[in-house]
Amino acid sequence: MHTLYFAPGSCALATHIALAESGLPYAVRRVDTKGGEQRSEAYLKINPKGRVPALVTDKGALTETVALLAYIAQIAPEKKLAPLDDPFQLAKMQAFNTYLASTVHVNHAHGPRGSRWADEASSLADMLNKVPQTMRDCFTLIEKDFLEGPWVLGENYSVADGYLMTMARWLATDKIDIADFPKVAAHYERMLARPAVQKALEEEKAA
Amino acid sequence: MHTLYFAPGSCALATHIALAESGLPYAVRRVDTKGGEQRSEAYLKINPKGRVPALVTDKGALTETVALLAYIAQIAPEKKLAPLDDPFQLAKMQAFNTYLASTVHVNHAHGPRGSRWADEASSLADMLNKVPQTMRDCFTLIEKDFLEGPWVLGENYSVADGYLMTMARWLATDKIDIADFPKVAAHYERMLARPAVQKALEEEKAA
Repeated sequence: MHTLYFAPGSCALATHIALAESGLPYAVRRVDTKGGEQRSEAYLKINPKGRVPALVTDKGALTETVALLAYIAQIAPEKKLAPLDDPFQLAKMQAFNTYLASTVHVNHAHGPRGSRWADEASSLADMLNKVPQTMRDCFTLIEKDFLEGPWVLGENYSVADGYLMTMARWLATDKIDIADFPKVAAHYERMLARPAVQKALEEEKAA
Repeated sequence: MHTLYFAPGSCALATHIALAESGLPYAVRRVDTKGGEQRSEAYLKINPKGRVPALVTDKGALTETVALLAYIAQIAPEKKLAPLDDPFQLAKMQAFNTYLASTVHVNHAHGPRGSRWADEASSLADMLNKVPQTMRDCFTLIEKDFLEGPWVLGENYSVADGYLMTMARWLATDKIDIADFPKVAAHYERMLARPAVQKALEEEKAA
């Protein structure tokens, strides 16, 4: 049994979608990040980084979306959620996911979480101001070079698709119209039609 | 045959070490990042993100350290550079590597590359000023919770070790004395004693 610690609207949705796609049993547990629960002693025992997502397994807790997505694909191999036996394709998937984690998510975070990297109010305003530009640059690359269509890796759906959808969901907050990226917008609609995605979104609301 | 596009002193060293450990044939090609070669038309065809590292394979180019390290481990399985057949341990390794990519590297980058996220000189100074604190926070966690010893994953060396060494190499620039983190410092010395690490460092100098 796996338990996903998540916060609504966070990047944990990608892992939640992968769990729903996997067919494995799982539970979800909402972390009250607005109330600071991620820094509570109890939660830091699960994830000393004080962040979501964390996935508690029978062997212990795992963190980081890039790692969790590949892990879920690996423990539910019959669902073919990643090209596990093709090192080149798997590396392409992992490169895409790592780009979302280390560039796209980071750029977005300079809006709501600029205080991770600077202290002055003027710096935080400056960062927030630049988010639409950096996010637009990222999605321009995704649209042009990375999203093969209909899924991220082409004909085969993978855990990367739930992660892209999770990032695309943030575009409105970042003052970007998803319609400016027709392939990304069509991918988002395609995702919404998947039963596992609907299940994850409903569970997120209900938790 | 694989060709690694790198810049000296960059995070590409982690992939370079993994290649040297793999025993596979490879070539290295220095990218003149100071002269802006990473934004040249020729290089953008290899990596449209305009960054190093990139690894050119027979099937095309791959990017992102987290993906490249696991890829090299997967195509040289006899070297046991990653716990490929243990999903939990592999996810632990990938979580560690993703933390380095999306948190540690990103924190460090706010010194030399703050202009990715803000425009005003005062913001860049503010960011630069905070780097020692954010990097110290990261290495405090690594020392206390993540570096099992003697290697990152415990008794078994993995590609995560070359990545940790690559980040630890940046501590001096970030005004942090590695001696403040005795396990990390000992790990660094242990890495320097490995022939593959010496080979990668020499090739980096010579390229």
